[in-house]
Amino acid sequence: MSDISLEQLTSLCKRRGFVFPASDIYGGLAGFWDYGPYGTELATNLKNLWWKAVVKENREIFGLDGAIIQNPKLWEASGHLAGFNDPLIDCKNCQMRFRADSLIETNSSNIEELTDLLKDKPCPNCGKDTLTAPRQYNLMMKTWVGPVEDDSSVAYLRPETAGSIFTNFANVLETTRSKVPFGIAQIGKAFRNEISPRDFIFRVRELEQMELQYFIDPKDQDQEYEKWRQFAWNFLLNQIGIKEENIQWHEHDQSERAHYATKAHDIYFKYPQGFKELWGTHNRTNYDLTNQSKGSGKDLSYFDELTNKRFIPYVIESSVGLGRLIMAVLINSYDEDEINGEKRVVLRLNPKVAPVKVAVLPLSKKPDLSNLAKQVFDQLATNSDWSIEYDETQSIGRRYRRQDEIGTPYCVTVDFESLNDQSVTIRQRDDTKQVRVKINELADNIKI
Amino acid sequence: MSDISLEQLTSLCKRRGFVFPASDIYGGLAGFWDYGPYGTELATNLKNLWWKAVVKENREIFGLDGAIIQNPKLWEASGHLAGFNDPLIDCKNCQMRFRADSLIETNSSNIEELTDLLKDKPCPNCGKDTLTAPRQYNLMMKTWVGPVEDDSSVAYLRPETAGSIFTNFANVLETTRSKVPFGIAQIGKAFRNEISPRDFIFRVRELEQMELQYFIDPKDQDQEYEKWRQFAWNFLLNQIGIKEENIQWHEHDQSERAHYATKAHDIYFKYPQGFKELWGTHNRTNYDLTNQSKGSGKDLSYFDELTNKRFIPYVIESSVGLGRLIMAVLINSYDEDEINGEKRVVLRLNPKVAPVKVAVLPLSKKPDLSNLAKQVFDQLATNSDWSIEYDETQSIGRRYRRQDEIGTPYCVTVDFESLNDQSVTIRQRDDTKQVRVKINELADNIKI
Repeated sequence: MSDISLEQLTSLCKRRGFVFPASDIYGGLAGFWDYGPYGTELATNLKNLWWKAVVKENREIFGLDGAIIQNPKLWEASGHLAGFNDPLIDCKNCQMRFRADSLIETNSSNIEELTDLLKDKPCPNCGKDTLTAPRQYNLMMKTWVGPVEDDSSVAYLRPETAGSIFTNFANVLETTRSKVPFGIAQIGKAFRNEISPRDFIFRVRELEQMELQYFIDPKDQDQEYEKWRQFAWNFLLNQIGIKEENIQWHEHDQSERAHYATKAHDIYFKYPQGFKELWGTHNRTNYDLTNQSKGSGKDLSYFDELTNKRFIPYVIESSVGLGRLIMAVLINSYDEDEINGEKRVVLRLNPKVAPVKVAVLPLSKKPDLSNLAKQVFDQLATNSDWSIEYDETQSIGRRYRRQDEIGTPYCVTVDFESLNDQSVTIRQRDDTKQVRVKINELADNIKI
Repeated sequence: MSDISLEQLTSLCKRRGFVFPASDIYGGLAGFWDYGPYGTELATNLKNLWWKAVVKENREIFGLDGAIIQNPKLWEASGHLAGFNDPLIDCKNCQMRFRADSLIETNSSNIEELTDLLKDKPCPNCGKDTLTAPRQYNLMMKTWVGPVEDDSSVAYLRPETAGSIFTNFANVLETTRSKVPFGIAQIGKAFRNEISPRDFIFRVRELEQMELQYFIDPKDQDQEYEKWRQFAWNFLLNQIGIKEENIQWHEHDQSERAHYATKAHDIYFKYPQGFKELWGTHNRTNYDLTNQSKGSGKDLSYFDELTNKRFIPYVIESSVGLGRLIMAVLINSYDEDEINGEKRVVLRLNPKVAPVKVAVLPLSKKPDLSNLAKQVFDQLATNSDWSIEYDETQSIGRRYRRQDEIGTPYCVTVDFESLNDQSVTIRQRDDTKQVRVKINELADNIKI
């Protein structure tokens, strides 16, 4: 692994078709990004691995795909309408706007404390003593549902996917005939009107989350919390191939935790801008079900037939941002080495994660060769779920370099000898070693 | 196949965990739906099949995952800001609001024509002559990006996924080093502020689309149009298992087509409310690239090295709504029959589409049996990508019925004999026939 700066990563992602600024031809839109062909495949692979490990391999965990726009009463009950705020501060002189807590070293978001701490601070932009007092600014993005734009039709883009998991607690419990403990998992988009989106796809306004809410008997909270904390760590190491030196634990102290959470551990990843939050495990207690129950008037308690006990389940949340995971995977796999005295950039991606599994490369564009190569493509693409690429232009060396840079573990070269011996060459990304195999044994020689 | 009404379908989908009203515990929100455990798996299967057939099996088609919120200039250039309207009409007496064109038999959306046609019409609700003149109402959902809510920060939730495909035309062309013809495919959410959402998940405000935009030389437009038109038809029949009697072609006449489209064919499906649009193939000409090029000032023309010709590619669009496809698949597979004199509801889903592939059912909850059954679950879940279900409560007959109703093709029963002979019974959904197989040969006997 070599180090890569934020600028290098942003540039590689654009140049190689992983991530483009949204509305690129219009100069973009701050905090919004489009995933290109390779970013889309990489994201899909990460989602599939997470879904398999969380939903498919556990008897008691089920999926959900909730709407982005929900009844606003949900966000009233969850506390987001009143409390999903950032403290904002303006400069009356230069008109710049800042997150109040970014101007001083504090984890506090309490307005009175911040007002106190910021008293006499000059504007970091123009240097004048013209900052306003801090005020709360809600991060939910607002819209209207239906033809009339008034208070009665206001709705919000969800700030987190968890909300619809809690409102569907009883629906899922009943339709899957589950018993506590059981979990509901969701992958989907959420929106946060960040004041200063930054650091490429790390802090954005439109994000995708992978979240598990695991419903438990309160007596099991310590054990279940530890289980899911370890799950996150092991998933990153063993399923994705994150190196242990790139991650570390960060336990929230009381000032960082949501007021209702009794415990919160984040896994921090070593991003170019420092160790920052990648994956959170939180003990949300019975806060969410209690509040959704109060807000809706529906009883969301659970009756345990074994113990004859009725209780509101506690919730262990395991939550990871897909964009942050993509960024971590790219940084973790970025490497530079030398091949025959020439510098090479290579993404040493776990093959399960790599956006393209195999590139099929005819040595020349001659119809004989390209026809055979197209047959090889068809055979691999039809009989597997792999994403295969076909590329017939430029020198074979340049085509290898391009595949190295998008992390393709295997290049299959079809050459003139292939027409005679029905064999092709497999070149491995990491050591550039080549082996010759029969076309009909090709798939067996590719380990994904 | 048996007929199913909209009400029966909505009820089955809720009762069996396919689709719940969004924010169900708050009485829902019109036009928004949450997909439950089985709806989510069904949707994923359909998306994967489409993605494999469109992206993975074609050398020249690439994926994209664009942001839902784009720079509003995109929608100015696309014509959506000015033209993505429904004609709206109010009753001054009873305050009801209608789509003007729904009150009379017309395909016109021209305001002057509608005003003329609606003159002297009474309100269909209260019967009084108190209807206003029709006016245009934009269907895009509005929000603000950033902390200031003013004209400069207005943005829209995308009304279709196609927009970011066109703005990324040059980015994808370049990073994949493609040549025309090539395609960009996208699966994602779009939002339409429908005046009257209705017909379950057929007409909704938050929808998911699967879209291909295929960029071609204008001289090939007829041939490519036919190719993608046939692709849609064949995909529905052969990949999904839609019955031919349930679909029909509908060619748009000039009044239905977008003004720039020279040709448009929809596949209509036989929904309970009648034959309605499921999948559209449209020749969008060079309208989109021309307008995004004008709007952004970027040259989006293509230079063909073979013919030495520069042109703006034409676009063949193939677009299907995921919710409408899910609805079609459920209706298409719904059946009622009799098993041992008892009425049964069964979804005869293509196994590739079925949300649960295998249900593992121990005959009783005794630890010996349930432990063995859990081993069978683990073995299947770990070594495949299948979604497997484990269920140990209620009589075996009721558990079979439940799996029939969610379309599970195989039930695997673990009984007391299994402890001795390491064999289990596979019951097939469609004919309820049972075969006994060794546990270590189980996976080979399951055909998905």
